[in-house]
Amino acid sequence: MKSSFKRYVIGKPLRSDALGEQKLSKTKALAILSSDALSSVAYGPEQILLVLMTVSTVAFWYSLPIAAGVVVLLVALTLSYRQVIFAYPHGGGAYVVSRENLGVNAGLVAGGSLLVDYILTVAVSVSAGTDAITSAFPSLHAYNVPIAVFFVICLTLLNLRGVTESASVLAYPVYLFVVVMLMLIGIGIYNVATGQVPAELHPKIGTPVAGISLFLLLKAFASGSSALTGVEAISNAIPNFKSPAPNNAAKTLLAMGSILAVLFIGIVALAYFYGVVPNAQATVVSQIAEASVGRNVFYYIVQGTTAMILVLAANTGYSAFPLLAVNLSRDGFIPRIFQIRGDRLGYSNGIMMLGLAAIVLIVLFDGATEHLIPLYAVGVFIPFTLAQTGMMRKWWREKPDGWVMKFVINTIGAAISFVVAMMFFVTKLPQVWPVFIFLPMIIWMFHRIKQHYNAVGEQLRLNGEALPIVDGNVFIVPVAGITKVVENSLHYVQSLNVEKIIAFYVAFDQADAKAFEEKWKAWQPDIRLVTYYSPYRSIKQPLKKFIDKVEHQYAKTGYQVTVVIPQFLPKKGWHHMLHNQSSLLIRTSLLFHKNVVIMTVPFHLSK
Amino acid sequence: MKSSFKRYVIGKPLRSDALGEQKLSKTKALAILSSDALSSVAYGPEQILLVLMTVSTVAFWYSLPIAAGVVVLLVALTLSYRQVIFAYPHGGGAYVVSRENLGVNAGLVAGGSLLVDYILTVAVSVSAGTDAITSAFPSLHAYNVPIAVFFVICLTLLNLRGVTESASVLAYPVYLFVVVMLMLIGIGIYNVATGQVPAELHPKIGTPVAGISLFLLLKAFASGSSALTGVEAISNAIPNFKSPAPNNAAKTLLAMGSILAVLFIGIVALAYFYGVVPNAQATVVSQIAEASVGRNVFYYIVQGTTAMILVLAANTGYSAFPLLAVNLSRDGFIPRIFQIRGDRLGYSNGIMMLGLAAIVLIVLFDGATEHLIPLYAVGVFIPFTLAQTGMMRKWWREKPDGWVMKFVINTIGAAISFVVAMMFFVTKLPQVWPVFIFLPMIIWMFHRIKQHYNAVGEQLRLNGEALPIVDGNVFIVPVAGITKVVENSLHYVQSLNVEKIIAFYVAFDQADAKAFEEKWKAWQPDIRLVTYYSPYRSIKQPLKKFIDKVEHQYAKTGYQVTVVIPQFLPKKGWHHMLHNQSSLLIRTSLLFHKNVVIMTVPFHLSK
Repeated sequence: MKSSFKRYVIGKPLRSDALGEQKLSKTKALAILSSDALSSVAYGPEQILLVLMTVSTVAFWYSLPIAAGVVVLLVALTLSYRQVIFAYPHGGGAYVVSRENLGVNAGLVAGGSLLVDYILTVAVSVSAGTDAITSAFPSLHAYNVPIAVFFVICLTLLNLRGVTESASVLAYPVYLFVVVMLMLIGIGIYNVATGQVPAELHPKIGTPVAGISLFLLLKAFASGSSALTGVEAISNAIPNFKSPAPNNAAKTLLAMGSILAVLFIGIVALAYFYGVVPNAQATVVSQIAEASVGRNVFYYIVQGTTAMILVLAANTGYSAFPLLAVNLSRDGFIPRIFQIRGDRLGYSNGIMMLGLAAIVLIVLFDGATEHLIPLYAVGVFIPFTLAQTGMMRKWWREKPDGWVMKFVINTIGAAISFVVAMMFFVTKLPQVWPVFIFLPMIIWMFHRIKQHYNAVGEQLRLNGEALPIVDGNVFIVPVAGITKVVENSLHYVQSLNVEKIIAFYVAFDQADAKAFEEKWKAWQPDIRLVTYYSPYRSIKQPLKKFIDKVEHQYAKTGYQVTVVIPQFLPKKGWHHMLHNQSSLLIRTSLLFHKNVVIMTVPFHLSK
Repeated sequence: MKSSFKRYVIGKPLRSDALGEQKLSKTKALAILSSDALSSVAYGPEQILLVLMTVSTVAFWYSLPIAAGVVVLLVALTLSYRQVIFAYPHGGGAYVVSRENLGVNAGLVAGGSLLVDYILTVAVSVSAGTDAITSAFPSLHAYNVPIAVFFVICLTLLNLRGVTESASVLAYPVYLFVVVMLMLIGIGIYNVATGQVPAELHPKIGTPVAGISLFLLLKAFASGSSALTGVEAISNAIPNFKSPAPNNAAKTLLAMGSILAVLFIGIVALAYFYGVVPNAQATVVSQIAEASVGRNVFYYIVQGTTAMILVLAANTGYSAFPLLAVNLSRDGFIPRIFQIRGDRLGYSNGIMMLGLAAIVLIVLFDGATEHLIPLYAVGVFIPFTLAQTGMMRKWWREKPDGWVMKFVINTIGAAISFVVAMMFFVTKLPQVWPVFIFLPMIIWMFHRIKQHYNAVGEQLRLNGEALPIVDGNVFIVPVAGITKVVENSLHYVQSLNVEKIIAFYVAFDQADAKAFEEKWKAWQPDIRLVTYYSPYRSIKQPLKKFIDKVEHQYAKTGYQVTVVIPQFLPKKGWHHMLHNQSSLLIRTSLLFHKNVVIMTVPFHLSK
């Protein structure tokens, strides 16, 4: 029942050798890996205008040079990451690049930031998408959190089904969004070019603005560059591509960069020409759509696809998080379970962990995760900077053919990323301070886990010194009565021909102890019975005491103590509730605290 | 840490032979067992007036004869239960009496009703007490549910500490309530007697009332008799009394009956003389207190002690539920865990189960459990009727000295209880219909459980046919690699001199299988290794398949298959999260589905 439900939702298990079929084509990869980056055109331009607005709407013409700056940064990052893809064809992105070139701690800073960032991506994007929907249907507003959680669960299940299947579903809305946006920009430019847009709507380029400062322009630039989050996703996910993976990934990255540049510049330009002023009621994209085509069907399509792409942006997190987790896990910094492929060959533990963490964030922040955006942007630009610096170091050390050009590209990328990250720290400290607490904590945790795995590995490794041989065995059989279960266990133990068998009984009062000893003597005269009286009604304590005594007694002979637990197993699941689970508790406690072998001899009931 | 916290909250464990010291004296028993009954004077009179009010406030004079009727019922029940106490000195109340005299199913109807009823007692009383408090401090009103849950948790912990300790704490408020109520009644009567209360406040006794009907009067009587819930508590709890238990219990019952009668009649009479009209803002008791003394300190004491006794009324459930559960459990109708005494000698599983169920009800009904009161009253009068009928049957059959008088008393008790129960069904069907669904379900469940225990007992009993002897052993050691853990397990297995040892390895790809086989041959040439390839990355499935194969192969020789699980145990608790718990899952699955002995050989890590 449980298993057939799972099969229906997740799909039937796939063989390990079916892995190749799960790989992504370029078209699918573009859809699945770029929704995060592309979705940012829905809010990036608005971020720039919001900062400029603090001075005057006359300052809006600055949005054009700022957008140009963001596009320069985008070009720099795209070219930089293109080099990363070819240099590290097995993926890993910022974590791997930083670790290999700048040392383990730089790698962990990058990896830790990204790990948290992917969780933020999911929470922030899904919340934003939900807001878009509930803005359209205000009666749903009270259900923001359940709706967002529902979306996260859907995305989690889609990803548990496997990468390509989710890509098939997700490809349409992404391409639809791109087409709709290009159409919107086309209509807008046509209107502007044919002079249908009055010139008084927008300030002239170059108009002097009182009170404008370099700090403010930089802040606007930093805000706008939050649109670049998600650019690194492709370089992390190279192993998901069909071969030749690096070439396909590089082409996909260039395609994404170009689309993003066109959409971003297009939206910023139209916002300028139509004189759009950000307000709480309508987003910038919504205002542009309304101004160019009116509130017709096309307007609602624009709004709908925008909402959809925001929800799907979360999917980037689902592609990148499990792969990063695998890399961190292989290096021993996070638990091994992240390396296990699920029934559908996805790294299901990473997927489920991501979904769970995102749901926790959404519930904790009551769906208002927009407060987390600056934190999220910082968490992206830290690894950007580290990765590009790592690449600089690599070229400098290796000096391959044409390394100077490569070095220059990555240097520009590193410098810009560093400046943007610093700008966030300087201009938005009140929102980004948690980085200084959580990042060190996460890195400390990484090291603790690594340390543990190292210690375990060392202790398990065969090192020439053979373990001592077991010279003989004492078997202790705790018995609760004279039943077939006990008889069954005794038969088994007797077949092993061990040196010593002792039955052990715990009595709750003295009369019971006596009576049981007599009954035992009549039934099993050959097996020694030891009875302890337990004034506190515990079975575990006297048993432990007895084990200690036996161990002490046989300490010199090299005998191993084994505890044999006779256990009857009811036929149906619900029957278990009707029987004490004390044998299970005793077993666990002994296993953890005593050096005894535990044996469970089953007696299956037939009805 | 966990254990010392538990010790602080619950107290240190008590020896079984300390049980005598935990017994109740009469004074403590009166406090602990009568709070439920006594608390009903806080709402019983109001219930009568609410029904009469539907005709006219002139009908209020009928409250006096109705109260007299309730007191007659109280006297009848008290005398009836006094006879139960002496006839069944080991306690058990309605369940035991009905089962022994009317058959198992009658007993189960009584027991099932009471079991559910005690849960309702806790939920309803605590909710009512919380309402009283939040009415006094309206700012707390939003926190009704958490406050009620907090009280339930407190009561649960108090009862886990043990009966007498909780009695010490609970005795003061109960006696304080009785004293305060007696003072209130004294002051009121003095005022009435000295003519300070104007005669026009109340209708003359005997004034004819238009529209009054026998049906309405009976409904008012039924509502008023909901004040009698809790009268049976003492007869259930005889084993908790100091010896001579039956005498002490009988005396306590008479004391409780007398106090309840005085308080009930007193409050009804004062309500009549002061012309109190029930309303949502102030309870009847609150209005009487205000009318007789004004809103002074004494008024707040009355309100405070009333709130307290309502919360404590829940405690009656805590005394009676676990004892009833023990009786049902001894007869095999509910799980055995209810018979286990906890560290402090209370039946802790019953106590915790009760607390949990009450919390679930409170949360489910959002604290508005007053809707459950009629259900609760019916659940009391069904077992009342059955118990008294059972007593009639007993006297008729046994005919001891003076049996006629005893028979008459129980007949009166049975008849009145039956009439009241019927009146609830007739007048309040919309609220009490769930009884017809839940009671049959519970009784069906009782029988299913009993059936299972009988089947198990039969299968475990030694019946002369000896179980087959084990002729030899095949040990399967699943190995995950070549490590000290495996070496340790092999040493142990080799010391047992069994007929056959097979190591078993699951490879996830073909190359791995080959490489491992070669390494194994070099390391342990004497132990046969079998390698399976698992295309679906499962370890459990191939292992089960291999076990099947081995079992089939050795089916004729009478060999037993044993699976030896090498397990390393990390030093610290949190380390477990870092390792796959697959061995645990495999162990459980094999134990349930295969007839193999499971052995866990521990390898404790030292760091």
